[in-house]
Amino acid sequence: MTAQENFDDKVLKAHKKHSGKIEIFGKVPILTNEDLLIYYTPGVAQVSLAIKNNISNSYEYTNRANTVAIVTDGSRVLGLGDIGPEAEMPVIEGKSLLFKKFGGIDAIPLAIRSTGEDDVVKFTKMLEPSVAAINVEDIKSPKVFNITKRLEEEMHIPVFHDDKDGTAIVARAALINALKLSKKRIDSAKIVINGAGSAGFGIANILHQSGASDIVVCDTHGAIYKNRTEDMNDFKEELAQYTNKNTVKGELQEVAEGADVIIGVSSKGAFSQEIINKMNDKPIVFALANPYPEISYHDAKSAGAFIIATGRSDTPNQVNNYIAFPGFFRGVLSSRARTITKEMIIAASDAIAKSVKKKQLSTDYIIPNISNPMDYTAMTVRIAISVAEAALKSGASSAPIDKTTVKKSIKEILRRYKKIEKYIDKFNKESSN
Amino acid sequence: MTAQENFDDKVLKAHKKHSGKIEIFGKVPILTNEDLLIYYTPGVAQVSLAIKNNISNSYEYTNRANTVAIVTDGSRVLGLGDIGPEAEMPVIEGKSLLFKKFGGIDAIPLAIRSTGEDDVVKFTKMLEPSVAAINVEDIKSPKVFNITKRLEEEMHIPVFHDDKDGTAIVARAALINALKLSKKRIDSAKIVINGAGSAGFGIANILHQSGASDIVVCDTHGAIYKNRTEDMNDFKEELAQYTNKNTVKGELQEVAEGADVIIGVSSKGAFSQEIINKMNDKPIVFALANPYPEISYHDAKSAGAFIIATGRSDTPNQVNNYIAFPGFFRGVLSSRARTITKEMIIAASDAIAKSVKKKQLSTDYIIPNISNPMDYTAMTVRIAISVAEAALKSGASSAPIDKTTVKKSIKEILRRYKKIEKYIDKFNKESSN
Repeated sequence: MTAQENFDDKVLKAHKKHSGKIEIFGKVPILTNEDLLIYYTPGVAQVSLAIKNNISNSYEYTNRANTVAIVTDGSRVLGLGDIGPEAEMPVIEGKSLLFKKFGGIDAIPLAIRSTGEDDVVKFTKMLEPSVAAINVEDIKSPKVFNITKRLEEEMHIPVFHDDKDGTAIVARAALINALKLSKKRIDSAKIVINGAGSAGFGIANILHQSGASDIVVCDTHGAIYKNRTEDMNDFKEELAQYTNKNTVKGELQEVAEGADVIIGVSSKGAFSQEIINKMNDKPIVFALANPYPEISYHDAKSAGAFIIATGRSDTPNQVNNYIAFPGFFRGVLSSRARTITKEMIIAASDAIAKSVKKKQLSTDYIIPNISNPMDYTAMTVRIAISVAEAALKSGASSAPIDKTTVKKSIKEILRRYKKIEKYIDKFNKESSN
Repeated sequence: MTAQENFDDKVLKAHKKHSGKIEIFGKVPILTNEDLLIYYTPGVAQVSLAIKNNISNSYEYTNRANTVAIVTDGSRVLGLGDIGPEAEMPVIEGKSLLFKKFGGIDAIPLAIRSTGEDDVVKFTKMLEPSVAAINVEDIKSPKVFNITKRLEEEMHIPVFHDDKDGTAIVARAALINALKLSKKRIDSAKIVINGAGSAGFGIANILHQSGASDIVVCDTHGAIYKNRTEDMNDFKEELAQYTNKNTVKGELQEVAEGADVIIGVSSKGAFSQEIINKMNDKPIVFALANPYPEISYHDAKSAGAFIIATGRSDTPNQVNNYIAFPGFFRGVLSSRARTITKEMIIAASDAIAKSVKKKQLSTDYIIPNISNPMDYTAMTVRIAISVAEAALKSGASSAPIDKTTVKKSIKEILRRYKKIEKYIDKFNKESSN
């Protein structure tokens, strides 16, 4: 077997061993008959009445306040395309695992069989009484934009579009640090984004908001510009309003000439070494397609890239949503936000950028990752607190946030899970002996 | 405070302490960077492809095979009526807790906001790729009958209507044992059922299938009979086809005169002592309204009832769905049944009846309960194996069932949860000191 085959084999065996990656547990035991009276019948009737009398009590007496639904139809999975909801399950089970491990959050993976936009909207809205927030995941664009827009308008709980905003939060943080190292400024850097799906749209948007003035977004037809006729939609039209100020036309390789930054959120192999050769000095290359980047870390390096980031955890500078979402949602839930504001998104991104200390910052360390768990956890706590504070300031939450209490509670939540996780790991190991 | 107020206070505090009763856990740890490569990206892509190539692999590589969705709109909760989905959550979280504790099953509580039958059907069908079975719960009848009928027809996974079939399974088992003690036969006993909702319909149906020939079902308008005009529906018409052979008319108190058995699945206070006085000798009284029975155990006893069962765990003979559903679903999942057959339902009920040993059987012990955990667990294993065997025999499953392996695996599953539950309990106690 090749190394790749070996790895694939190991992965499949690891998933099969316990049949997947997550399970449900009781927070409380049923050890005696009295436990049953309290937690089931007849006791539970009192709890139901307390919630009936004041629906917000569902955040106190049930696990709702800590519960997120991951909703997807599996129409755009990793770099694999529309492989359907069953095949999407391992991805969102993995995500649920990270939600718990790093954010202490209970995330229910729901890969649904839908016939389109209306179905997904209807399904997700019906979930509202059972959860505190929605994470929309791996749905094809542009339909996902309509879906999230409708959900944001019609639901009374926060809706997060991770492929768009999660990626944008992390990419922006990495870019801030990369620009620092290359001594370039975001407002004058020439930035080319390849890919006009959820991630491309989100990144262009957040960089524009952050002062970038020279952005060109390409799709498979090349640069997107105002009044282009080929393969446009409302969202590409929106992009064309504030990007490509010089109305550049042409393929990626032409557009990327002289660029300071290229960001790929497209597909395997989309960046050649030749493209990197023709960039400005100290080229910054983010090749974020997952699991196979637009160009490998090593090929980009040997083509002269100054800083390279990918979505993978086996090369430096992993720009992956998992950097952000556990801390982001922790902040959303701990502040009991009712919606997600731009301020919360920017706050999360700033918190990530600032989590790399001055003496740590280097071309191969522009962003923390879990290979340094202490840094990663500190970052997650920082994101959560920043998001919670921004929620309060921007009016998304009316709960008073006490920074010290929030910090203590997040650390406690993560410590608890770590301890129980270790016990389960020990138990698994003992059982397989 | 009165004893009741004291108890209510304790219940509310217990629910608030940990904010509800269930949470999600990783089956596997993320302790190293390699764990992330395996369980998240890039490894997970292989797992997605393996499932894309053969959808049934989702039962091997994800937690689907052990996952049940509890679906409800909260339109008929306990004895509380239509109190809405948020207020229903404590009930189905409790149910999820019991699913895990006694069946080793991961049950996702989903209380949805729906506008009616079509919504619930649509929502539940969309869930299919993420779960192995559906448990329909606490939805008002008659709409719930249409909902479950459509789901059974249109879904490719088993759909169980717990209020109807779960209650029927347990009530029938208790009745078999009660009749043994009173030396009466099901085919000649006069049985009156008060309540024509899901439970009443299910009990009448299963008793008829089991040879009962003299059943009368009453609703709030009294006895249901063929061609009655008041407040009928398709399901009451169906009942009228095989019950009330003498076309008795009138109120419950008249109809119950001379009855051997009265079964209440109605509401608090529906049975008076006078009704019991006028029954045949050795009256059997099942007062199953929850949490407050049609007549209390003690009032029924002092009115001369020979055997009394209620839905509560604080008096003898608890006829409650929780007796059946963990074992029933364990059998469904372990046999990977594709549907639920009548044979599986009868097999579960027989397994419960037979779980009371001859020397244990008494007027105050016609059914096992968790105050004797060893008996309860033995019963659960017995139900699961019986259901799995019936699934195979009746064509609901094509997987070969090896009784010994199934038994061993169920015991292992329950043992594992018990051990981890104790650890969590210990951890909770340490944390609150």
